[in-house]
Amino acid sequence: MNYDQVTTPSELKRLNIKELGGLCASIRERIINVVEKNGGHLASNLGTVELTVALHYVFDCPKDKIIFDVGHQSYTHKILTGRGDVFDGLRQNGGISGFPQPEESEYDAFTAGHASTSLSVALGFAEAARQCSADTGVVAVIGDGALTGGMAYEALNAIGSEHLPVTIVLNDNNMSISKNVGAMSKYLTRLRVSKKYVGMKNEIKRAVSIIPIFGDGILHLMDKGKKLLKRIVLSNKMFEEMGISYYGPFDGHNVSELIEIFEQVRKKKGPSLVHIITDKGHGLKSAVIDPEHSHGISSVGAMVGNDFSAILGEFLTDAAEKDNRVMAVTAAMAIGTGLEKFSTAHPDRFKDVGIAEEHAVTYCAALAAGGVKPYFAVYSTFLQRGFDQIVHDVCISKRAVTFCVDRAGVVGADGVTHQGVFDLSYLLPIPNMTVMCPTDGAELKAMLEFSLGFDAPLAIRYPKSYKINREHAPIIYGKWEEIVTDKNSHVYVLCAGGRALDIALSAVEDKKLNVINARFVKPLDTEYLDGINKRGNIVITLEDNVRAGGFGMSVLQYLNSKGMLCKCVSLAHDDKFIDNRDVASSLSDSGLTAENLLNVVKSLE
Amino acid sequence: MNYDQVTTPSELKRLNIKELGGLCASIRERIINVVEKNGGHLASNLGTVELTVALHYVFDCPKDKIIFDVGHQSYTHKILTGRGDVFDGLRQNGGISGFPQPEESEYDAFTAGHASTSLSVALGFAEAARQCSADTGVVAVIGDGALTGGMAYEALNAIGSEHLPVTIVLNDNNMSISKNVGAMSKYLTRLRVSKKYVGMKNEIKRAVSIIPIFGDGILHLMDKGKKLLKRIVLSNKMFEEMGISYYGPFDGHNVSELIEIFEQVRKKKGPSLVHIITDKGHGLKSAVIDPEHSHGISSVGAMVGNDFSAILGEFLTDAAEKDNRVMAVTAAMAIGTGLEKFSTAHPDRFKDVGIAEEHAVTYCAALAAGGVKPYFAVYSTFLQRGFDQIVHDVCISKRAVTFCVDRAGVVGADGVTHQGVFDLSYLLPIPNMTVMCPTDGAELKAMLEFSLGFDAPLAIRYPKSYKINREHAPIIYGKWEEIVTDKNSHVYVLCAGGRALDIALSAVEDKKLNVINARFVKPLDTEYLDGINKRGNIVITLEDNVRAGGFGMSVLQYLNSKGMLCKCVSLAHDDKFIDNRDVASSLSDSGLTAENLLNVVKSLE
Repeated sequence: MNYDQVTTPSELKRLNIKELGGLCASIRERIINVVEKNGGHLASNLGTVELTVALHYVFDCPKDKIIFDVGHQSYTHKILTGRGDVFDGLRQNGGISGFPQPEESEYDAFTAGHASTSLSVALGFAEAARQCSADTGVVAVIGDGALTGGMAYEALNAIGSEHLPVTIVLNDNNMSISKNVGAMSKYLTRLRVSKKYVGMKNEIKRAVSIIPIFGDGILHLMDKGKKLLKRIVLSNKMFEEMGISYYGPFDGHNVSELIEIFEQVRKKKGPSLVHIITDKGHGLKSAVIDPEHSHGISSVGAMVGNDFSAILGEFLTDAAEKDNRVMAVTAAMAIGTGLEKFSTAHPDRFKDVGIAEEHAVTYCAALAAGGVKPYFAVYSTFLQRGFDQIVHDVCISKRAVTFCVDRAGVVGADGVTHQGVFDLSYLLPIPNMTVMCPTDGAELKAMLEFSLGFDAPLAIRYPKSYKINREHAPIIYGKWEEIVTDKNSHVYVLCAGGRALDIALSAVEDKKLNVINARFVKPLDTEYLDGINKRGNIVITLEDNVRAGGFGMSVLQYLNSKGMLCKCVSLAHDDKFIDNRDVASSLSDSGLTAENLLNVVKSLE
Repeated sequence: MNYDQVTTPSELKRLNIKELGGLCASIRERIINVVEKNGGHLASNLGTVELTVALHYVFDCPKDKIIFDVGHQSYTHKILTGRGDVFDGLRQNGGISGFPQPEESEYDAFTAGHASTSLSVALGFAEAARQCSADTGVVAVIGDGALTGGMAYEALNAIGSEHLPVTIVLNDNNMSISKNVGAMSKYLTRLRVSKKYVGMKNEIKRAVSIIPIFGDGILHLMDKGKKLLKRIVLSNKMFEEMGISYYGPFDGHNVSELIEIFEQVRKKKGPSLVHIITDKGHGLKSAVIDPEHSHGISSVGAMVGNDFSAILGEFLTDAAEKDNRVMAVTAAMAIGTGLEKFSTAHPDRFKDVGIAEEHAVTYCAALAAGGVKPYFAVYSTFLQRGFDQIVHDVCISKRAVTFCVDRAGVVGADGVTHQGVFDLSYLLPIPNMTVMCPTDGAELKAMLEFSLGFDAPLAIRYPKSYKINREHAPIIYGKWEEIVTDKNSHVYVLCAGGRALDIALSAVEDKKLNVINARFVKPLDTEYLDGINKRGNIVITLEDNVRAGGFGMSVLQYLNSKGMLCKCVSLAHDDKFIDNRDVASSLSDSGLTAENLLNVVKSLE
């Protein structure tokens, strides 16, 4: 049975259990081939092939809703729902997304990309079904890593108090993006090792054989508390305490057993949690061996630049040698943010809090209050989760937390849910916050040196990579750096960050321009701005952020407040979500190119 | 023993247990007298008098850190730490804050105001103490309501996995701001009713009398698992499962018993949770009877205007009669946001999710996806918690959630942590978001009527109250309303919201102006702006929001992009935190007055 013989879930349902095994093998092969070429999440998708096949075998999508948490594990789902033939286009411009997208398919019930949202979504769908008297099955598939997110707990708390038919599939591979952390993880591990999987074929079927009622009865009995079956199958007090029936753990690679349990659970009227154990990378030796490094794979053809994260990791590792105040904190992104080396060199001063950005921000604020110098390395898009904490816990009392905001600007293949184009807009309005943008690795290093002596909230934002290192003027608080000066030019291009600077330097080959490295986005270099605010001058701001609330508007506001004499134009992303899958076209679609810069200058001269 | 005889915790420690009883009574009286005059949180503070006295008796502040979650229950703490004599100034300009403020006293370990942060703060302090080899006792005092916040769970998860001496005091009064919700609340209730309080005098002392080792030994035994004492004292599997030792429940009004348990717990090396049962409003009959309505009390002299929240509540209650898609959601703020009537009229279509804004936002997004028309009524400052979810779950897929953003702008007595002056800045940069500001109750009603037919994300932001209702032009998407037109005037005052409009209308008594109700802040009325963008015109924007990223900058950016011919000035809050305790001075300090408006006009003419 080949994946291309199944183009809808209805076709899947016509297969017998034996054929499903072949289908799973074919899907697995398809995923490996495409991800090796296009990049993407390999291990997590290989771990969820049988799980997804079983879910679609039992539930009726799109009427029923399967919500994949984060959604990076939805490749099998995409292949089974009419996208097997276009799966080659995974994460490519014009091709399918690496995450569920309702805009892409009616089978994708909800937007995903950030972690820990699926349970809230599932409860919302279940409540909507109740309101509309609709017969809608609702399943959330959530990994053990995403369970560290507080939002998941808020939703569990709500699910446990409502008697709605929400099925939670806990996909437990004991391996979130980095290693799992925290008490919940330890608890799941204890559950896992304290007892073997409950193979349906063995314990349950044996038990069933001595119980007269099959079907509904089996789960009815499970709910009854003191029956034999319950003692065999259930063990998790925590979920039960919250009012959620717990079943498991089951082998997540036994498709027929999964189908049986899902068929039973589907008939329940209240909330259930089915605990499934999967191997990340199941079926691919290298991914099983090293799931952490094969979690996200870059495509073969992807441009590899110099990574800012490597600079961060090196700097902090060295700094911690000399300065025993330095601590590094990450939220399940130790490798992505460059902290892997730090974590082994200084395990006592490294904290991976799991997918828990809210906690991470406030934790850092208190570390700072207690005399530590904390660095929170985090992706721009995920720091959105900590916005309130930045305002309330860091900035009101001026706690000296340094935010190393990675993957700022457009991100390429991860697409719309991961764009780091809002951070300047949400950071600049916060009083007491300082915001810097390095243009290359050498400058990031200099900014980090600066940060060691800086006793207030600080955000340093940068994309994944930079092109080349340049010589730089020393960092002086609130001062910009002239990169190219030309006394004959009346055009001043103010660049926030490396991508902006690259565009300006490319344009300068064709036209005389003054190019300025606006390394401090907050505070602005007002002295410099005063100097160029003259009639006849043209000031152009460049940034890899949305225009609203960004660097350009900040410059414009300042110039206008002083009586604007120059002309001023902001080049930035427009007011729409960006779903391009590469950095270059994302920038060019927003006019962030040398060509457009030159056109804008021309139109103003 | 009178409260004014104790001005530091050291003085407290010299008292004997009997004297503490009198002290508690005196503190209670002082709190009642001041809160009745100044407003504030009465019930929660009356509930925590003995608890706070016992904590300060045992721990050594400011070396040790007592972190009050939310911090609204810190009045006794303030009285005991040198602020008894100035307690009259509670919540007044120039007086002490109603929340802990490190800027106010070294005894206030950390900023508080928003819920569920204390556990992250406590862990941060404990880790910092470990890093610095400091002997710092750390206590977090958290209510059962704040435990519904996901951030608290993220921190519990972290605390459970670190062996650090963090003491969590769970102050359980079974009554968060509104009624408690969710599975955790039910669980605590079950704990509470399934067994009586463990009176130290009785069970423990009796047990102690038959155990040879007192002191450390008692808790050592508690940790041992199968000993008599543990079976008596412990019952909470959930916290134990997370790796946190659980003790309780204890009577939170028995100061000598509390001192005994805190002295024991203080010696522990790992994390503990002490479960205390208190009566909100203990010692005041009316507050005990109706803690919900005596949670926050307005001061006697406070100006009472017409509340926007009342309009919201009435409208939604009526709308739900006619339109069965309408649902109302709140995060523990049913009364504050005006939804009390709705909750009784339509219990099936009302959800109070507890202090869980992240879940609330995404839950609403899924409700909308499932065919419901959800209204999330939330304070501006608390919606900050849901920023990522607004971007990721609501706006990317254009889910038709209506955010009723209450307490927008400056808030008065609650002070710096509660100012709703950032919402325009964090909402405007999000694509697909529409933002409206009503100027009075009649207009809010019209906007809500508009929202019923509006199929995209929408935020309606308003402060607590408005002055009078006016006649209004119908709501047309993206169109502003002229309130005062004067052909002889070249000054156009664009007002975002009622407070802005009040200022402009006050100024118009002294000077001819055109006054415009900029009811749509996003999208802007670009046609109107094009019409007034003429040389010689003066455009002034007025808003009760910080300048950065707000309405004024949005107008400026638009005008500039079209070639700015008029002059344009933004009146808004400056880039600093506002800790005034009344609305009028908060506005006037930022130049949001008719007088300043006229001065600005004069300077530009």
